[in-house]
Parts: sequence; structure tokens; C-alpha cells
Amino acid sequence: MENRPGLDPSVAEVRRAVRAVLERVDGSAVVALSGGPDSLALAAATAFEAERRGIPAHAVVIDHGLQEGSDAIASRAADTARRLGLDARVVRVEVAPGEGPEAAAREARYAALSRAADDVGADVVLLGHTLDDQAETVLLGLARGSGALSLAGMPVERRDATGPLWVRPLLSVHRRTTVAACAAEGLSPWTDPHNADPAFARVRVRERVLPVLEAELGPGIAEALARTAEQLREDAAAFQEMIDETIEDIVEHAEAGISVSVAALAANPAALRNRIVRYVVESEFGVSLSRSQTLEVARLATEWRGQGPIDLPGCLARRVGARIEIAARAAS
Amino acid sequence: MENRPGLDPSVAEVRRAVRAVLERVDGSAVVALSGGPDSLALAAATAFEAERRGIPAHAVVIDHGLQEGSDAIASRAADTARRLGLDARVVRVEVAPGEGPEAAAREARYAALSRAADDVGADVVLLGHTLDDQAETVLLGLARGSGALSLAGMPVERRDATGPLWVRPLLSVHRRTTVAACAAEGLSPWTDPHNADPAFARVRVRERVLPVLEAELGPGIAEALARTAEQLREDAAAFQEMIDETIEDIVEHAEAGISVSVAALAANPAALRNRIVRYVVESEFGVSLSRSQTLEVARLATEWRGQGPIDLPGCLARRVGARIEIAARAAS
Repeated sequence: MENRPGLDPSVAEVRRAVRAVLERVDGSAVVALSGGPDSLALAAATAFEAERRGIPAHAVVIDHGLQEGSDAIASRAADTARRLGLDARVVRVEVAPGEGPEAAAREARYAALSRAADDVGADVVLLGHTLDDQAETVLLGLARGSGALSLAGMPVERRDATGPLWVRPLLSVHRRTTVAACAAEGLSPWTDPHNADPAFARVRVRERVLPVLEAELGPGIAEALARTAEQLREDAAAFQEMIDETIEDIVEHAEAGISVSVAALAANPAALRNRIVRYVVESEFGVSLSRSQTLEVARLATEWRGQGPIDLPGCLARRVGARIEIAARAAS
Repeated sequence: MENRPGLDPSVAEVRRAVRAVLERVDGSAVVALSGGPDSLALAAATAFEAERRGIPAHAVVIDHGLQEGSDAIASRAADTARRLGLDARVVRVEVAPGEGPEAAAREARYAALSRAADDVGADVVLLGHTLDDQAETVLLGLARGSGALSLAGMPVERRDATGPLWVRPLLSVHRRTTVAACAAEGLSPWTDPHNADPAFARVRVRERVLPVLEAELGPGIAEALARTAEQLREDAAAFQEMIDETIEDIVEHAEAGISVSVAALAANPAALRNRIVRYVVESEFGVSLSRSQTLEVARLATEWRGQGPIDLPGCLARRVGARIEIAARAAS
């Protein structure tokens, strides 16, 4: 039916992406709807595909209450969702002050979506992030850190310990396709003024960085960044699997901390050795080591020449016989 | 001695980087000298550190003959090297026509350096690439491909099957430091007009892309790219080590090609499975698979539902029982 003559290719592409997800869903699905072009195209495609499969589908619009008239914008998005055939509700959230406004709004939004999914008995929440969002996330990650994890972008699927399955069906779809799909279906997306505010790093990446990369290095940079994210996420998952398989055999817990076998660290390739060091310190002390700190600890195993204890944030690492001990610093 | 009062910090930094390499060198070293600031600072530091250690050190200047007056530029660089205390020679190379000019010049240059190192009995060749070169290489890799390998930049050390050990002592040193070191030592580096020619993608990255990244995402982007390259190179090496350890057990050679065990592919995490697929096709048919081709072949193992043969460049992949066979396409 979606291949009928006259169906806009952009609408067909968004529907295909949603169908691939819904084919694996039992029960009902929630679409996180902001009213912008990405989530609106996602909502329209979900309404169409869910009806074909006979699955109930809901739109949840989060009103952060951070902008003048946000309640009217949210109501309008919910009305549009109902016209598309979705059950729709607006959820007003309070954004905790203190944290950065972006992080606080995101946390409140995901918590509210999780509760709304629970309320309607849905076990999957569809998010409208596109390939362009992914490319922006990779570049933002590059600015913040380094290595595979910081460049790994957003996952297609993520399941928390509790809560719904979060899925991003449009992570291989361009933003221009969602814009075209809305236009083809006569939908008028809302334009968030924040999306043009260069105070946000993401906006600067979208408006200034990616256009320069495309102009100077050729088109296809956003796709290359998204493909890179997918591969680096796979890499990170493989290393984490290897760590999970071996960690219990190589660490020992002590009163003041934890110790790791020097032989096990030395036998692993650097990529895995350095990740084990970071993982142990992170899980024991909640501290994220820098690259140079990680290497300094690893050298206690690989280049031992009697180094003294290594000062780390909140803890100390030292070589003791055939083990590296990482212990909380004594209160002074 | 290098910490004596009055020694410019830039000179001290370049010398420290060179010393860390020369400490591990027996016999003599060759510096690849273009006359530009990076290789000139490298030559000066090598002259100083080699004399301290009593190692013979040589400068080799390659004259590609591609620019008017290149012979005079090369002679001048060799003269400077001799004044610094290095044995120096100019080697004129012919650049093979046909290939891209950058690639052809690079290939001719490395071959000539390898021969020159052999001539003087050196088993290490020092190259002047800096942290900024590395950042540029990562961004260029991003434009060309995707995943860990394309972002892995240049190695600090590489040894070919034959030929010298290639070492890049300045890969953690900024270009501005080599410029400052030359100035502090009264050396006048040559400015290659190619380094300002926006016909070269590398020049566009240096002059247009990196400045925008630094301006919009904050300083430290070049360092983040270089750190990322180092970590991704480690990751790639770890996966290659895992492949090398298992490949003989999971492939079988047949008359028309090669086959891989479905069970082995399916048991590995995606990162390793996809690399095995790429590695097998690359080593058997000299073909580099795209991400989507790789995934399609992998699905013959992980999502088997009777798919037909998969057309790849120069070969076909198909599922045959518990194996995936990859065979040359029959001549038609």
C-alpha cells in the first residue's frame, strides 16, 4: 500500500523505517512527539503502520514549560496526533533547576516518557532522532572526549534496567526526509526557536560545523559520521562483552578498594587492558579516568620499574606484588 | 642539559620527544627532511640528541623535482642539516605518472628514504608529522570511510616486512611548537607553496575545517582527534590480534574461494564478526567491502532465512549448510 503510485518517496522511507521496528513489537508503542518535523513524521508513519498491524499507538507530548506558550504548542501537537489516528496526551514536567538546562530538560523528558509508556501499557518508546542528529552527536562527543565511546553517538535501541525499550527508527533517515514527509502529508511542524540559537553547541554544529565539513570534504559527511558511530558502538559493545566475561576472574575486592591481576592486564591487548583499568576505577569509585591517567595505571603492569603510587581523583593506584591495588585515599 | 636556563620550551619539548625514541635505537637514525618547520625542528633535535648519545644521524632530503627550483630548496635544507651536525644527502626521485600526484609523490618518497636508510646502515627513519598532521589525517579519513580504521590516523611506529622502522616522534607535538623551536634556534624553514593550495583536501582541512571546529566546539579539538586516533588504532590492533588467533580455525580454502564457519561468525560479537567478513574477502579477493555489503554477508550467518547469493565486487557470497562460501564469480 505504501508503494502505491503517488506516495511521496519521503513518506515511504519514513514508513519503512518505522515498519522495521513495529514488526518486532508486541503490544503497543508510544511516540515521543515534540511537534517538530522529525517526531511529526515519525508520528504520522507510526499511526499508519500501527493501524496496518492492528497495534495500539500513542503520542506523548512533553511540555517542559520552559518557553512562553509551550502549553499551546503541546496541545496543538497532540491535536495533530489525534487527527493522524493516535491516542495522544500532553504531560507537563517540571525541570529541576541546578543542572544545565539541556541535561535537566532531557532527564525530565525521559522520566515522563517512561511513566507515560507504563501508564498506557506500552513497552516501546519511539524517538525521532535522525541521521543528522546522530552526526551532530558524534561531533559533540569529539569535542567532549576521545576514543570509541565518545564517538559512538546514540544507540538505535536501548533498554534500561527498568522502563521501556527506547528505539530510534529514524537514525538512518535524513532530517530533510522528515521535513519532506511532513510537507507531502500536509503537516505543519513546529519550529523550535532553540534550534536556531547559537548558544547551544548542537546548533553551532548543525549550522556552522557540518556545512563546512560538507563543503570542504565533500557531501556524505553526515552519513560517514553516522556509520562511524554505528561501528564504534559495536566495537565498544564487543570490548564490554570481553570485560564482562573476564572481570570476575581478574579482580579481587578488599576492604579499601579493589585489586587487578598484573598478569591478566599484561596478557591483554592495550585496547582491552586500558578499558579494564577504566572500568574497574569507574565501577568502584565512580571516577572516569582520562587517557593519560589510564595509561599511567596500565604501565604499573606493563612497564614496571618501581613506580610510586599514582594519584587519581578520589583514589590511589599502586603495584603490590603481582597485583595493582586501587584504594580510596585515606582521609587526611 | 636541555633544562638549562634560557633553553626555549619549544626546543626542549621537541628534544624530549626525539630523546624518547633515540633511547630505544641501536645503530644510526635517518631524519626525513623537507626543510619545512616540522622536519627542520626534528632534524635539529635529532642532531643534538644523537650527539649526546654518540649515535650517528643522517638527514635525507628528497627532491621530487615537481616544483621549479626544488633542487635548490633541497640543497639548502641539506646544508642546514650539515650545519646542525648531521650527515646529509639529497636524493632525487622520479614520481611515476598516472597515480594521483600526492599518492605518487608519497610512494616515491618512502621508497627513496628506505633505500637511503639501507645505504647508511640506519634501521630507523624519523618522520616529522605533528599532532596537527594527525588531526588532519583523522578528518580526511572520516571523509573517505568510516569506522575505527579510517579514523586511526598515522601510527607512531610502523615496520614493514622489509625496510626500516618508521617512527613519528612528534605525533604529540603541535606544529606551532616546531615553528617556535625553529625560530628559537635561528633556523629559517622553507614554506612549501603546496601547503597553502586549497586544491589539496589536507590544506582545506587545515585552513578551513579545523579552525571552524576549534571556534565552535572549543579549543583542544586537534588533541581530541589525535587521542581518538591513538585509541582507535589500539582497538583495531586488538581486533586484528583476535582475528589472527582464530582465523585458521574458522576458514577453509576451496578451489574457487574460501568458506567461513557460520557457528564461529554467529558466536562472535558484531564488531569481530563484521571484521572477519571484511578480512576474509580482502585477503582472498583483494576487495574492500562497504559497511552495507559486510552486514549483508554477516546476515547469512545471523539472520538466515534462505537468502540467495550476495553479489560482491569480484565475488559471490552464499550460505552452504553450516558455512558461508565466498567464491570468485564464474567468467561469463
